[in-house]
Amino acid sequence: MIERVSFENDYNTGCHPRILEALLQTNTERTSGYGLDKYCVEASFLIKKACHAPEADVHFLVGGTQVNLIVIAGILKPWQGVIAAETGHINVHEAGAIEATGHKILVVESQDGLLTAEAIDRYCHSYHDDPTAEHMVQPGMIYISQTTELGTVYHLRELQKIRQVADRWGLTLFVDGARLASALAIEESQIDLPVLAELTDVFSIGGTKCGALFGEAVVIINDSLKKDFRSLIKQKGGLLAKGRLLGIQFRELFRDQLYMEIGQHENDMAAVLASRFSACGFEFYAPPLSNQLFVIMDEREEASFLERAVFERITVLEDGRRVCRFVTSFSTEMTEIDTLFTK
Amino acid sequence: MIERVSFENDYNTGCHPRILEALLQTNTERTSGYGLDKYCVEASFLIKKACHAPEADVHFLVGGTQVNLIVIAGILKPWQGVIAAETGHINVHEAGAIEATGHKILVVESQDGLLTAEAIDRYCHSYHDDPTAEHMVQPGMIYISQTTELGTVYHLRELQKIRQVADRWGLTLFVDGARLASALAIEESQIDLPVLAELTDVFSIGGTKCGALFGEAVVIINDSLKKDFRSLIKQKGGLLAKGRLLGIQFRELFRDQLYMEIGQHENDMAAVLASRFSACGFEFYAPPLSNQLFVIMDEREEASFLERAVFERITVLEDGRRVCRFVTSFSTEMTEIDTLFTK
Amino acid sequence: MIERVSFENDYNTGCHPRILEALLQTNTERTSGYGLDKYCVEASFLIKKACHAPEADVHFLVGGTQVNLIVIAGILKPWQGVIAAETGHINVHEAGAIEATGHKILVVESQDGLLTAEAIDRYCHSYHDDPTAEHMVQPGMIYISQTTELGTVYHLRELQKIRQVADRWGLTLFVDGARLASALAIEESQIDLPVLAELTDVFSIGGTKCGALFGEAVVIINDSLKKDFRSLIKQKGGLLAKGRLLGIQFRELFRDQLYMEIGQHENDMAAVLASRFSACGFEFYAPPLSNQLFVIMDEREEASFLERAVFERITVLEDGRRVCRFVTSFSTEMTEIDTLFTK
Amino acid sequence: MIERVSFENDYNTGCHPRILEALLQTNTERTSGYGLDKYCVEASFLIKKACHAPEADVHFLVGGTQVNLIVIAGILKPWQGVIAAETGHINVHEAGAIEATGHKILVVESQDGLLTAEAIDRYCHSYHDDPTAEHMVQPGMIYISQTTELGTVYHLRELQKIRQVADRWGLTLFVDGARLASALAIEESQIDLPVLAELTDVFSIGGTKCGALFGEAVVIINDSLKKDFRSLIKQKGGLLAKGRLLGIQFRELFRDQLYMEIGQHENDMAAVLASRFSACGFEFYAPPLSNQLFVIMDEREEASFLERAVFERITVLEDGRRVCRFVTSFSTEMTEIDTLFTK
Repeated sequence: MIERVSFENDYNTGCHPRILEALLQTNTERTSGYGLDKYCVEASFLIKKACHAPEADVHFLVGGTQVNLIVIAGILKPWQGVIAAETGHINVHEAGAIEATGHKILVVESQDGLLTAEAIDRYCHSYHDDPTAEHMVQPGMIYISQTTELGTVYHLRELQKIRQVADRWGLTLFVDGARLASALAIEESQIDLPVLAELTDVFSIGGTKCGALFGEAVVIINDSLKKDFRSLIKQKGGLLAKGRLLGIQFRELFRDQLYMEIGQHENDMAAVLASRFSACGFEFYAPPLSNQLFVIMDEREEASFLERAVFERITVLEDGRRVCRFVTSFSTEMTEIDTLFTK
Repeated sequence: MIERVSFENDYNTGCHPRILEALLQTNTERTSGYGLDKYCVEASFLIKKACHAPEADVHFLVGGTQVNLIVIAGILKPWQGVIAAETGHINVHEAGAIEATGHKILVVESQDGLLTAEAIDRYCHSYHDDPTAEHMVQPGMIYISQTTELGTVYHLRELQKIRQVADRWGLTLFVDGARLASALAIEESQIDLPVLAELTDVFSIGGTKCGALFGEAVVIINDSLKKDFRSLIKQKGGLLAKGRLLGIQFRELFRDQLYMEIGQHENDMAAVLASRFSACGFEFYAPPLSNQLFVIMDEREEASFLERAVFERITVLEDGRRVCRFVTSFSTEMTEIDTLFTK
Repeated sequence: MIERVSFENDYNTGCHPRILEALLQTNTERTSGYGLDKYCVEASFLIKKACHAPEADVHFLVGGTQVNLIVIAGILKPWQGVIAAETGHINVHEAGAIEATGHKILVVESQDGLLTAEAIDRYCHSYHDDPTAEHMVQPGMIYISQTTELGTVYHLRELQKIRQVADRWGLTLFVDGARLASALAIEESQIDLPVLAELTDVFSIGGTKCGALFGEAVVIINDSLKKDFRSLIKQKGGLLAKGRLLGIQFRELFRDQLYMEIGQHENDMAAVLASRFSACGFEFYAPPLSNQLFVIMDEREEASFLERAVFERITVLEDGRRVCRFVTSFSTEMTEIDTLFTK
Repeated sequence: MIERVSFENDYNTGCHPRILEALLQTNTERTSGYGLDKYCVEASFLIKKACHAPEADVHFLVGGTQVNLIVIAGILKPWQGVIAAETGHINVHEAGAIEATGHKILVVESQDGLLTAEAIDRYCHSYHDDPTAEHMVQPGMIYISQTTELGTVYHLRELQKIRQVADRWGLTLFVDGARLASALAIEESQIDLPVLAELTDVFSIGGTKCGALFGEAVVIINDSLKKDFRSLIKQKGGLLAKGRLLGIQFRELFRDQLYMEIGQHENDMAAVLASRFSACGFEFYAPPLSNQLFVIMDEREEASFLERAVFERITVLEDGRRVCRFVTSFSTEMTEIDTLFTK
């Protein structure tokens, strides 16, 4: 059997060669543990600089579910819940991680994975107008992802409106940036790192899906959320002993434009992939924008692609057609796309 | 200022060169995520073989606190607690990780970090004899560490007795093996991997402090604890996306005797260190056996060593003397010991 | 201003005179606390007899949210969730009590507050068929209410089918009987206490809304759920010090047919109320069956009724009409209904 | 067999006749539920008046464990723990209720159930001085009981010092007043309700052990702890549907001096009991001050008393002697004491 090419996800290889090289170069050095080393300090500095947010706190965690459960558990009051889209990662694919910290996810209607400021506002109105509100879970936070689980992105205009809604109802705004590199490469969204630092209370910068071996940076903007955060990370099992591994990786991603370049590469490869699918007459389940494509195909077509490639089937539509996900990563090559479309 | 040598801990460098090489060799391969790859399968097989436990389940997690909170939360009933020594890692240095999953740590008297079967038995007796027992936290599990936080080890005889006590009271027995490589190299303990597999319900094999970049293997022996364990790992943020990184490392540690060799090297270096300290007339706070030494010194001596080395002060005794910890690792070299004792 | 009559809920007065009398008669007796008294023993016996379930365990708790959170937290594994209707009390009106114990509520589509065996089955199928199931919350339990939040009831046929689905997927079946007296008085449901004992794993018998000052009996049928339940009650703050107060009340409700009579009275009064509303041309939001009526009225009508009565507005429909809830209780009198309909 | 008199505890009968009468008088009234009734409003007003704390918030809960877990869970940050004496009710007799909300109990040395400001200060110092503090549980709150589990009481001087320590380290001070009526009747403590309101952040006023059928009032002094407290009560299953039952009882206890009179009666009866024991040559395990006496006796003496009375054995001393607890309540009568000492 021929080796199939893989568009299964953006974490199916190791890391970007430059990151590997940095790990090699530093392997024998001795440093303090738990992120109290010079590499974490420097990576933190570089990220704050890239965000135009010198006052931010930056923490480095290993994985995305860890980030979400720690940030959310750290911020919400015991009687509060977090607003999310039905497709939100925390609502579907974290095995109840948020609820395990004691908090309900308050599902608000969404479109293509995107919440709207209006829907959030309506939800909060309805909570606060309800005479039995104190018997219900109080919204305390808004969780959105950039890019979303469906590969779509928020536009600056919408993010500004969501910020206003957050302020109106006293909600914390948290952006899950597990795939932020890809999102940042979409210029028409008009959302760059300084914008995130300006409009959110806290956001994450994904490494795992953006060229690192592992690692997510949490950027805390809101002063009131900064205190004792490392204790919470430790409590939830998120404080890496050899924490410098995170610092070394993020230093490499942010000491020049590597993080942005990886996002651009992912999107470029996805654009090629999308145009090939379109050229073959395929339609998309959600608009193709970032490094995840959701292609609608019938059973026969799916089987045919499966001969040459690994990818995930996300769901089966009522008419029997499949929604299949193709993901590009820092290491996706044109030849793999060619192989996928070889007859 | 001269570069000081470091005996701060056993996670102050990167990883063993063989592990680094293995990561390099595999970096560009594409595999499935979350531990569902061939390297994890192979590492799991090698560990089960080393344990003479073909029926065991092996899972790979990133860190030790993660292991402890996931194993304990997964096993205890909501109304149960876990028995531990006062010095137990879960009781002191995990920022309340166990309590955050809802469970009390039941402190039972210990000596040099070691629980005794007798003390555990007495504790359980007293719980079950108490007419108000149902108002108290029920012991559900025994947590011990090999080596302990004070560098001591359980002997086979004691472990057998603890197993009997566990059986008498229906308790699960869990051994935290964060520093298991060092423990396994102490032959007089008569505890090897097959013994652990025979006498415990679940134990961990530490990688982070034994030459890996990161990673702990959880070996589940008791069938009733196996079901759905991966869901729990995911929920607690412990399922590494690029899970193969763990498989690759543990495959390297267990495909020949590397894990044992690392433990032996740690202990050899610690033995040299201990003999040097003894020769200088220093006493130890706990018997020097494994890769952690607890040396008693006065303020002036501490200051003098601090000029040449990095190490941790653990506590100050009532008479003002310090207890200082010196730790060796896979990468400790004789020259570093020489430097430490240079006048 | 005239004193308005109240149909606000079924807990707006004290208790049934016979219960009050029993509390009076026993007030000066000395008994042991925490439910270890003869009244609790007798009440437990009477309930088991009424259920034809001599092997059941019966516990007495103060309130309904307490019952739900204790039963659910006691039964579910940490990685499991509970299936419920969107309108389920645990999903809407318990301020996140279930999530606070660490468990997600898995909302399955419902009609008039009723789940169907088919919908539950479909949900479980879809979970177990999903290749990423271990990243999702595992269904562990079915929660239904008899009567539902919309005053409807399950029929024996549906309950049998739900039992089969529970067995197929290894789910625990829990019936919240906060308003069970009213439900039991609906003969066409064909569900009586022995049926509940036969088909469920655990169910509750509400006292608070059925004539008691307070109190809910939890009937545990499934042996595997019985152990240590009192420890869990204590942990969640549900073990009443003067526990006999619960025993005395439930003994009174069950030593003859008082519980059934109260349910019958509630439904009789509701039937009169429903016929009056119907006679005036009002429609119902959910079929009027039990002691809760959901009447649709316009703004002017609502205002008019509010002059003579206290009741709750549940929601406002898209066309601006209101859904108003009128509830009868053990103490509802015909004259109150007359007052409500006085012009 | 003769009916034995009972000194088992202070919750072994119903309630004070005046409270029973008040429940009788109000039984048929219709009021809103969940504490939103005129009786709760009035009781709250009376308590605030008695405390000279017009700005306080007062909530009524059913039981003491409920109070403790709700107050503590509501106040602590996720990474904080609560300081308590080893004998503290939350540490021993609440089945892990506090840990079940995610928080560790930080045991600080105590004497006769009493913490000292010095010991608390030392503990906090040692936490904040530890270089690995962020790996440990941060003290966030001080929990003390008035009277303690051993029947002793804090004196004003010590409470003032504890307040200073709380301020020094930013800790919340919470006084568990399950037996506050008895404590208030000990004038030499110089702690009355206004003193509690001045020196604590939050405290409870016990009803269950002071003449009520059930019920504890929570008095929140610190403004920052007031918001959304009712949501938390609801979430933890502590919001009584017929909440007025609590208001009616506390109104009765506080509309004149009934609460103080009950405390005085309890202590008077205990004083008689203590003098009788002393006259017989018995010694006490803790100084006899309040309504709980801890009498040391040998096996034969214990057996002899058991013929005439019900009481609890607390522990067995190393020399084999027993510590037996005798508790007086609002309903203890001189004749019962006479019976106890009948030969």
